[in-house]
Amino acid sequence: MNIRIYKTAKLRRKALEDSLHLNLPNTAHFSLDEQVVAKKHCENMIGVTQIPMGIAGPLIVEDKEYYIPLTTTEGALVASISRGCKAVSLSGGVSICVSREGQTRGPVFFVASIKKGKEVSQWIEENTSLMEETAKKTSRYISMQQVVVKSVGQYVFVRFGFDTKDAMGMNMVTIATEEIANLIEKENGVTCLSVAGNYDSDKKASWLNFINNRGFQVGAETVIKKEIVQKVLKTTPQQLFEVWLAKCMIGSAMSGSMGFNGHYANVIAALFIATGQDPAHVVEGSMGVTTMKVLANGDLYVSIYLPALIVGTVGGGTGLSTQNEALQILGAAGDGKVEKFAGIIGGAVLAGELSLLASLAEGSLVTAHQRLGRGEK
Amino acid sequence: MNIRIYKTAKLRRKALEDSLHLNLPNTAHFSLDEQVVAKKHCENMIGVTQIPMGIAGPLIVEDKEYYIPLTTTEGALVASISRGCKAVSLSGGVSICVSREGQTRGPVFFVASIKKGKEVSQWIEENTSLMEETAKKTSRYISMQQVVVKSVGQYVFVRFGFDTKDAMGMNMVTIATEEIANLIEKENGVTCLSVAGNYDSDKKASWLNFINNRGFQVGAETVIKKEIVQKVLKTTPQQLFEVWLAKCMIGSAMSGSMGFNGHYANVIAALFIATGQDPAHVVEGSMGVTTMKVLANGDLYVSIYLPALIVGTVGGGTGLSTQNEALQILGAAGDGKVEKFAGIIGGAVLAGELSLLASLAEGSLVTAHQRLGRGEK
Amino acid sequence: MNIRIYKTAKLRRKALEDSLHLNLPNTAHFSLDEQVVAKKHCENMIGVTQIPMGIAGPLIVEDKEYYIPLTTTEGALVASISRGCKAVSLSGGVSICVSREGQTRGPVFFVASIKKGKEVSQWIEENTSLMEETAKKTSRYISMQQVVVKSVGQYVFVRFGFDTKDAMGMNMVTIATEEIANLIEKENGVTCLSVAGNYDSDKKASWLNFINNRGFQVGAETVIKKEIVQKVLKTTPQQLFEVWLAKCMIGSAMSGSMGFNGHYANVIAALFIATGQDPAHVVEGSMGVTTMKVLANGDLYVSIYLPALIVGTVGGGTGLSTQNEALQILGAAGDGKVEKFAGIIGGAVLAGELSLLASLAEGSLVTAHQRLGRGEK
Amino acid sequence: MNIRIYKTAKLRRKALEDSLHLNLPNTAHFSLDEQVVAKKHCENMIGVTQIPMGIAGPLIVEDKEYYIPLTTTEGALVASISRGCKAVSLSGGVSICVSREGQTRGPVFFVASIKKGKEVSQWIEENTSLMEETAKKTSRYISMQQVVVKSVGQYVFVRFGFDTKDAMGMNMVTIATEEIANLIEKENGVTCLSVAGNYDSDKKASWLNFINNRGFQVGAETVIKKEIVQKVLKTTPQQLFEVWLAKCMIGSAMSGSMGFNGHYANVIAALFIATGQDPAHVVEGSMGVTTMKVLANGDLYVSIYLPALIVGTVGGGTGLSTQNEALQILGAAGDGKVEKFAGIIGGAVLAGELSLLASLAEGSLVTAHQRLGRGEK
Repeated sequence: MNIRIYKTAKLRRKALEDSLHLNLPNTAHFSLDEQVVAKKHCENMIGVTQIPMGIAGPLIVEDKEYYIPLTTTEGALVASISRGCKAVSLSGGVSICVSREGQTRGPVFFVASIKKGKEVSQWIEENTSLMEETAKKTSRYISMQQVVVKSVGQYVFVRFGFDTKDAMGMNMVTIATEEIANLIEKENGVTCLSVAGNYDSDKKASWLNFINNRGFQVGAETVIKKEIVQKVLKTTPQQLFEVWLAKCMIGSAMSGSMGFNGHYANVIAALFIATGQDPAHVVEGSMGVTTMKVLANGDLYVSIYLPALIVGTVGGGTGLSTQNEALQILGAAGDGKVEKFAGIIGGAVLAGELSLLASLAEGSLVTAHQRLGRGEK
Repeated sequence: MNIRIYKTAKLRRKALEDSLHLNLPNTAHFSLDEQVVAKKHCENMIGVTQIPMGIAGPLIVEDKEYYIPLTTTEGALVASISRGCKAVSLSGGVSICVSREGQTRGPVFFVASIKKGKEVSQWIEENTSLMEETAKKTSRYISMQQVVVKSVGQYVFVRFGFDTKDAMGMNMVTIATEEIANLIEKENGVTCLSVAGNYDSDKKASWLNFINNRGFQVGAETVIKKEIVQKVLKTTPQQLFEVWLAKCMIGSAMSGSMGFNGHYANVIAALFIATGQDPAHVVEGSMGVTTMKVLANGDLYVSIYLPALIVGTVGGGTGLSTQNEALQILGAAGDGKVEKFAGIIGGAVLAGELSLLASLAEGSLVTAHQRLGRGEK
Repeated sequence: MNIRIYKTAKLRRKALEDSLHLNLPNTAHFSLDEQVVAKKHCENMIGVTQIPMGIAGPLIVEDKEYYIPLTTTEGALVASISRGCKAVSLSGGVSICVSREGQTRGPVFFVASIKKGKEVSQWIEENTSLMEETAKKTSRYISMQQVVVKSVGQYVFVRFGFDTKDAMGMNMVTIATEEIANLIEKENGVTCLSVAGNYDSDKKASWLNFINNRGFQVGAETVIKKEIVQKVLKTTPQQLFEVWLAKCMIGSAMSGSMGFNGHYANVIAALFIATGQDPAHVVEGSMGVTTMKVLANGDLYVSIYLPALIVGTVGGGTGLSTQNEALQILGAAGDGKVEKFAGIIGGAVLAGELSLLASLAEGSLVTAHQRLGRGEK
Repeated sequence: MNIRIYKTAKLRRKALEDSLHLNLPNTAHFSLDEQVVAKKHCENMIGVTQIPMGIAGPLIVEDKEYYIPLTTTEGALVASISRGCKAVSLSGGVSICVSREGQTRGPVFFVASIKKGKEVSQWIEENTSLMEETAKKTSRYISMQQVVVKSVGQYVFVRFGFDTKDAMGMNMVTIATEEIANLIEKENGVTCLSVAGNYDSDKKASWLNFINNRGFQVGAETVIKKEIVQKVLKTTPQQLFEVWLAKCMIGSAMSGSMGFNGHYANVIAALFIATGQDPAHVVEGSMGVTTMKVLANGDLYVSIYLPALIVGTVGGGTGLSTQNEALQILGAAGDGKVEKFAGIIGGAVLAGELSLLASLAEGSLVTAHQRLGRGEK
């Protein structure tokens, strides 16, 4: 069966059902606009995956209240983050710091020698404005922020960083980088082996992104009053601190991890899927470091740090109907909203850390999962 | 507004719509069983996220044909993987090797001294059958496969590996580990600081999982005839090899990456979401190494290696209706199917690698995305 | 000038002096036995490098007193470690835990396919006693402890671990591994590409060695009374803890480091050079994790962890005259001493950590170096 | 016995000999100037360690011939590097690229909040010239090259990079950083927890240094004619390439290594010890990537890349008599020589890589070590 000959989701699904002797009634049940999907989002569409969306919160971030849409199939996750939101909000909410680091693309060029590599490096460093103009011609939304060149043997790796406004911008930067790569090839007589040379790096856990950032760098912090730790989180600041130190610091060191945290990936994945982000970006988005400190007055300071959060509020999956509705719930749909959106994610991640680490500290993780969990047992 | 007081998705959604002055008609459009979801998958549900599902393939894996369901909002992904499937299948299909490495949980204990830590380590090594029995009592589906102990200062980290049959089994192993931890506490007079001490490690990129594996270890390989490389992939074996070497090896080395590959994360994420896997497991699932070699006759050998694929065919999100339909498309729903499922994922990842690296080699990545992409430009 | 034609250090040196118009009187000044050196340690010898050896201590390790020989050109290092020894010894000394993990060699084989790779893996796992016998034939000092096989694409990596008694044993295990590799080649019809395939891994910082250990795993710990922290180390337990947490944990996480410690490398290098160890093994020997905790009574717990200490007390450079004298100072020359030696290194490393971190905590690092330093200013 | 009460090496040694009932005649045999050593290099000196120095080469680097002094106790190393030098020099020598990246120091500050952290970051970015002046006041040899700030939770890490002329400069930059830290503390009302916060990072394997460099970045390359590969290295370009790919790329990826090379550490350690460099800097100095390619005409391209080579030609151990003689052999003693010295190291490392990988390719590693080795067997 050649599925590509069928022109609608219905026909393709029918062909597949016939061929495999299956019924796919739920996959067939959707309200997404098939035309839009076919053009921009998914080839050979046969229907949709429906994933439950729950609401955590309200969560106070920089003095405003948000309801957090979380799309997940993992029982207990929404409840757990909600508990974290409660503890945070009762303590006055989360304070955030968002910094635009730029969407990156990292082509690799092949050169005759390291001396030639050095020449190319110099040309690149001396022609940033020419490359900026080249990028500008590919999209009015893009501007080049930074260029880093690294030459090794016959390879020259370049890491371009772009401001892509409110779009995640991966395609935009690929197009711009291809144009710039053409320019570099022409002006230097070298060959671009690949417009993406894993020196971005994209959708891979890498120290390059951890150390030099990518997308948005997000910090979030709060101080939880000790009474609230006890009442809402059922543990103590000191106990939370001990668990954090043992798990997120020593445990992560002992396992050679890029995640010095409790479970960023759970929160990031649920928010990314809800809001139409690229779920493969959970890989770099979930790197990062949680810190804790018991203050002199006995309250608990807690912070999270996301070095490479790749998000957008326009373009990509954000325009799909359910995904856009989730962004609307956050007041983060459309232009001019991406920094705000990144900050809310930081706040939700912090709420998730608090609640998970508290569950571990008081030993309730298991019971929560038994009550709310997947029933795997 | 306290969303937890409402008892149905409809009421919660209504309250949220009223409170935020929004309409969420698409979120409301679903056929999932709300009762099931509420009990096992998602608290405070207000509806669903709909994500388009496309079909790639057919892909021949170990002489059988499969249609690959891919849930994604990234235009060009399904088409690209389909092209890879075509090249692979015309060459006779993918050969796979799947090895069950065990679902892990890694608690951390606090001990008075390294000497005490050594005692605890010895107790653990000498009492594996006692711990096995303890695990068995928590579920008839579980069996303990391995225990590794690492003692550092006042911390003892233990990595338990379990066979969880066809379930992904995270909750199952957490429950079993908690019981075992209670036993260790009681018998050794020590304290379990956290049942999950980041020595699993779970949903984090870590060398521990890369080197010592987790879940399933999957290898897949094929030889693509040089004519097919040219005709279907529009490039040559030598050119593909050069791009692979520059990008997946040198580029990943230069960026301190755990992903010596092209874009495992894209394929893994699309398949995980389609089939109800935990999307946070894309983090470890997308680690791995692609290899290529131009054979003496000019054909191209290509392989992929997934050290830590965390999947199940029962339990978790696999029981949800659309997710289960996707598993049925693969003939991988239910008991006794998980190794097969892991192998198909390996095959799809290989097809995705081939096609992406070919696009980069021939310089068509940009045009494909411009044609099929998100329209961000 | 062809230096290889000259038969003694004197003639070679003379030729070099003439050719380069230099005088090398200090290089000429040595008491090492040139014949022994020529045969076992260094080709084309022209003389020696003289490096100052100082004495730190006494350091109490497991209730015995040791003077620590440290060969270094870095002013302040011996004094600093001595201060650490004083603080430790006044508090009752260091407690240690040494575990023999085995010297490793990691050959790589080329196989036709992953299926063949699996066959080879199985053959290896089923024939450990045959391989053990093969190893035994190459040396009566060697015994095989463990074998780990990892198959990726057309490559099969094997990590053999050997007990090499009191010798560091790198050559011994290479010879044994070559014989075993010959056996594997013959029995399986595959080719060993390299007897050392970076899967040992040898003289490289690697997570494989960090996580799965190599050589000796060493832990050391002590509790420093708070009065001694104040009097000898001029700081407080709390202040030391804060510096440790910020530097060794958060700072190392932020820099993607394999060293969650203050300066293991300084102590390891000085001890390795003094005692004739291979200084290239400082690379893996200096990986590791320091921990601290302020106890309820205000005293300071401190521990160090060395995952991969590669040392010997016979063979290699340990037989050279000055190197052997240094081992004698430690009572660690010759057979049956290597575990003891590894433990003393652990103790010295702990003393070094305490003193450096205290200097940083009280801000005296600079003044110590200005007083005792290299005079670079 | 309190060794600190004795005022000369002889008296200290005598006391130690008496106390331990030992003779240390070889340790006593030295020509180093004890007064100088006591003041700048080593406290509590009792004598020296003598390590054999051999000569490899000549090696042609950028058209000039050098004899390479290597201090080692590992039989076969000098002979092996010599063989590499021969192959390289017969092919016309090594071409190099040296780039001064700056000696770094990375203090950590404690701040009240991430908002305060951002303020401090901004102050630092806006006051680089003030900090530069402050650095200048501490030494006329120093100038500040770069400042990178990273804020996480209540910690602000700063990485200062300095040009320290021909000195390795670690003490110099520590002194300058302390002054700058005082300034930052005073102007921002924050506390410097540690002048060295592992964000340098110093003497630790870290991706920060690998990716963002430290000290000198050195590339070296050559093309070895295929006849010379066969005649001198006893193998073929293709065979060398296969071994390199399997070992340095795949093997290093599989082991989570920062060394994508054969044995940089051996060459770096032998050269560092010979020339009075700090041997603890072998840790970062031995990170790096070797590349190979079989050219169209059958010759072999080979390159090495050292991201973080920390060296000096004045100050530190370089002024000691034997160490300075080794630098003189290279024509690299004193002012204005450090780039040249770094380049020669690059050349020697390349020669070492070629020869080792060739030994592995032809299977002669074992026999060389058996013939020239340590006689451990």
